Amino acid sequence: MPTMFNVARRDVLVASAAFAAAAVTASKPAVAGDPSFMNNVPDPLLADKELPTFKFALEKSQGKVIGNSFGKEATVTQLPISKGIAGVSMRIEPGTMRELHWHATAAEWAFVIEGRVRTTVIDPQGNAETNDFDVGDVWYFPRGHGHMLECLGATPCQFILIFDNGYFSEFGTFSISDWIGHVPKPLLAKNFGLPEETFDTFPKEEVYFARGAVPPEEPAEPLQGWKLPPETHKYRLLAQAPHRVYAGGREWRVDSTRFPISKTITGVILDLDPGALRELHWHPNADEWQYIVDGQVSVTLFGSGGRFRIETLEKGDVGYIPQGYGHSIENVGDKPARILIGLNAGIYEAIDLSQWIAGNPADVLATNFGQPQDLFGKFPSHDVFLAGPKDTSK
Amino acid sequence: MPTMFNVARRDVLVASAAFAAAAVTASKPAVAGDPSFMNNVPDPLLADKELPTFKFALEKSQGKVIGNSFGKEATVTQLPISKGIAGVSMRIEPGTMRELHWHATAAEWAFVIEGRVRTTVIDPQGNAETNDFDVGDVWYFPRGHGHMLECLGATPCQFILIFDNGYFSEFGTFSISDWIGHVPKPLLAKNFGLPEETFDTFPKEEVYFARGAVPPEEPAEPLQGWKLPPETHKYRLLAQAPHRVYAGGREWRVDSTRFPISKTITGVILDLDPGALRELHWHPNADEWQYIVDGQVSVTLFGSGGRFRIETLEKGDVGYIPQGYGHSIENVGDKPARILIGLNAGIYEAIDLSQWIAGNPADVLATNFGQPQDLFGKFPSHDVFLAGPKDTSK
Amino acid sequence: MPTMFNVARRDVLVASAAFAAAAVTASKPAVAGDPSFMNNVPDPLLADKELPTFKFALEKSQGKVIGNSFGKEATVTQLPISKGIAGVSMRIEPGTMRELHWHATAAEWAFVIEGRVRTTVIDPQGNAETNDFDVGDVWYFPRGHGHMLECLGATPCQFILIFDNGYFSEFGTFSISDWIGHVPKPLLAKNFGLPEETFDTFPKEEVYFARGAVPPEEPAEPLQGWKLPPETHKYRLLAQAPHRVYAGGREWRVDSTRFPISKTITGVILDLDPGALRELHWHPNADEWQYIVDGQVSVTLFGSGGRFRIETLEKGDVGYIPQGYGHSIENVGDKPARILIGLNAGIYEAIDLSQWIAGNPADVLATNFGQPQDLFGKFPSHDVFLAGPKDTSK
Repeated sequence: MPTMFNVARRDVLVASAAFAAAAVTASKPAVAGDPSFMNNVPDPLLADKELPTFKFALEKSQGKVIGNSFGKEATVTQLPISKGIAGVSMRIEPGTMRELHWHATAAEWAFVIEGRVRTTVIDPQGNAETNDFDVGDVWYFPRGHGHMLECLGATPCQFILIFDNGYFSEFGTFSISDWIGHVPKPLLAKNFGLPEETFDTFPKEEVYFARGAVPPEEPAEPLQGWKLPPETHKYRLLAQAPHRVYAGGREWRVDSTRFPISKTITGVILDLDPGALRELHWHPNADEWQYIVDGQVSVTLFGSGGRFRIETLEKGDVGYIPQGYGHSIENVGDKPARILIGLNAGIYEAIDLSQWIAGNPADVLATNFGQPQDLFGKFPSHDVFLAGPKDTSK
Repeated sequence: MPTMFNVARRDVLVASAAFAAAAVTASKPAVAGDPSFMNNVPDPLLADKELPTFKFALEKSQGKVIGNSFGKEATVTQLPISKGIAGVSMRIEPGTMRELHWHATAAEWAFVIEGRVRTTVIDPQGNAETNDFDVGDVWYFPRGHGHMLECLGATPCQFILIFDNGYFSEFGTFSISDWIGHVPKPLLAKNFGLPEETFDTFPKEEVYFARGAVPPEEPAEPLQGWKLPPETHKYRLLAQAPHRVYAGGREWRVDSTRFPISKTITGVILDLDPGALRELHWHPNADEWQYIVDGQVSVTLFGSGGRFRIETLEKGDVGYIPQGYGHSIENVGDKPARILIGLNAGIYEAIDLSQWIAGNPADVLATNFGQPQDLFGKFPSHDVFLAGPKDTSK
Repeated sequence: MPTMFNVARRDVLVASAAFAAAAVTASKPAVAGDPSFMNNVPDPLLADKELPTFKFALEKSQGKVIGNSFGKEATVTQLPISKGIAGVSMRIEPGTMRELHWHATAAEWAFVIEGRVRTTVIDPQGNAETNDFDVGDVWYFPRGHGHMLECLGATPCQFILIFDNGYFSEFGTFSISDWIGHVPKPLLAKNFGLPEETFDTFPKEEVYFARGAVPPEEPAEPLQGWKLPPETHKYRLLAQAPHRVYAGGREWRVDSTRFPISKTITGVILDLDPGALRELHWHPNADEWQYIVDGQVSVTLFGSGGRFRIETLEKGDVGYIPQGYGHSIENVGDKPARILIGLNAGIYEAIDLSQWIAGNPADVLATNFGQPQDLFGKFPSHDVFLAGPKDTSK
């Protein structure tokens, strides 16, 4: 159960609140409206009488296959509701690399679900970091920063990529071989101070998945030596104890407060025992992208105006919840479910229905629902968050 | 050749990198242009040869009526120019509540014009605040935070709501009865740890205005106890002396410097004596939404390219001025006028024509207007702001 | 009457402003996603199989001509790819002024290429600054701040204006004569406390270029006295030694770290000797607008998906590079070239191809390009930035 904070005397709290406000004020930038709503014609897809589907069977899709490596994507093309976030499932075979590339229109967040991965990444200050990742580890690359991903060891690796732009396509990224392959050789020669012939045997078209030797177990020093960035791109999400534990499951959560470089994406791993429910809630500041790592869940979506939709997601399926829309996730299978959740915000925010109700007095609730006041003495007086198959809220 | 930075030992670099990160963190974020203009195709409505109407007779419209309570709204549907701000006039009869709800796409700012109002509101940290409001008081609820509004006492209350998104509709908000009414009862039972029958008599459709007992004079404790937020949602705008007093009127103004939680909306109450003029000016950082609380005013709008429009607004009418457009407000009636003004920015900014002129030397003005230099010795050498019916600027 | 703030000595004011800036800096706002990608339908122009032209012959265009003064502009109308930045070349004859005006939808950055210019500008706090500019000087006016530009001395002046909004048109700005000319005279009389006849001979339509006496050599005091803003609008870019010097050229660069008021635009002057190359690179956080001050350059543009385009720009031509797109600039003429570059970001960021490669170990590069590892020992182990006609990178 989350910690609670009760005070008997309202004025004490108000005084300390005023103090906190004064401290905060000395810091915020001038706010010129909320830019995310300026010139913001609503999505017509969300203006219909019925809610559109919010599910896509990502792992059942074909994607891009080269040898035994693949990339499968969920963008607005595959899942039209997902305007705010795109996702990719990528599998790379041993000795293979998703080549050096960058994304002009999205940052990248990733979670490793199988095998081991090595990445290199460069920032605009010329700092470069090399990291090795195991299952349960996370990376974040800011928009436009050049990077590569390669499989480590003798077995394949797989990871789920999340991008903070639903229009982003992994297959329209900027790859180094595509670039160098189209630059005239005299310009390359001048750029690098090397003879033109140097580039005779370089690829002429995009390589995408490059195949070569299995990488050395220890990463080698970059040509420029070690020159590390101020904020690391790696976070070991599952290498630590869960951040919250309930009777029916557990949660790991990482936003920019734990992983400072991840300023536009929050990630969550949610484990639900059979029958357990992540209760009805909404996120005031973010869209939500879901990937079912394991199990079978039922997701509800509430879109105002009487619009309500339930879909069942299986292992490998993707779900999407627009910002501010009510939703819940319930394990309806007979084994544990694990859900990977990505939110397009650097700070996690959620309001749970049980806590909203608990934040009101009984007379307000009685009038709202046309019920006797004493009924609400039976409701939870705290945030439920995760309800077990048995009643764990009392 | 640029300086280079090679280190043999990775840990040394990590240490200094951490130091650099601390230095960087204590500073401004990188600014990537002004996001409010990115991908910002101009509004075609403002690209015509003539300016569109900027007036809507809000109180003469029908709106949504339930019993003796109503909500009337001005969105882009009623007033197409008002892309940045929507507004609502709401009246609630005794014993009635605008039920628990949230707005996925807008923050809410309000000003009470009649009666008394109680609100509850919850934030994403689980803090909840209950406040009572009198005439002249203001509230602000950040986007997505759940809240309710109820009439206090034996007489009706009325208030004007302002939303920082012109596409927002009060009638498409997320109401708790609409949500709970559509969730399957087994899920509700699990969520709250209660028998399914608990929800048999709950409303099946949106209640919107819920009717019950007149609320207790003193607010009751929420189910979770008192757990107050760090920043209050209430500001007593008219309970204090006017912030500016002139011969022809007075002004109260509240932005986030006085009311820290109000980060996306600034509110103003402007009183104009008969004949008084809020001088020609513009707001560089915000659209302006006007509600005539009392009186009759003439509003001018200047839109560049020779476009100029004058409209007369009566009590209960709404006006709208796009960001950066020149305008003025003059009391053309025979009694005092009161105008409620909302701006979609957390910091108030305005440039007055008289002060702009006073900020230039006479030779510049002489050339600009083709006049003799000494004429400008007669112009105000200060900001006029509010010109009385008699000449108050000298 | 509002309080006023007059200071005799500028340095006192600058000192307290610096103190205020330090207080404001100590903070970071909560980040709710990257607003520049919210609701961001990609530009269809950049979604075609071929890249569109990124060149416009600005100085060969007609523009707006009054007497011997002119303004020529490059907006999305003239150069459809340039969604993020518009530019203007303006020439003003002696005794002429681009009259008092403001821009509702863009900030303005300028670089003087001939003659001398005087400006006045006012901010929303009522502070006004008058500055004189020589060749190589820069100004920045935040969005919506009123200003004028006039030619100083007996010879014409010319400057290049950059706006942080490609839809912005210099010919749709808000001019003071256009405004005052359309306001009814009784309202003007009341506004300024002057007889109506005062305005009988004021212009009735927009003047745009106003002609009068040559301005005094020393700027005169504004009507309101000296009341300076906390941050100056002037930066002497070329009056200092180049910020970077290479065998084949030199660079001056100014963003908000050197010129604090310039929060949405970075400016660069890049000098390239014949044959010199600004190497292949991209900007993760900004679009780029180019103006060829002198010489002839070849610009390459890489847009992913095998799309690559090369255009030759002559003196007076404009180029445009979308955010995140790879590009290079090479002097292909027989004399030195000077390029003025504007980026729509307040912090300069770039990633150079040579440094990206140098940030990787040889085994990664070998696999990526299908080459032997030892080849990469010949590649630069540092950032090349600017490659001379001879190999300067070794």
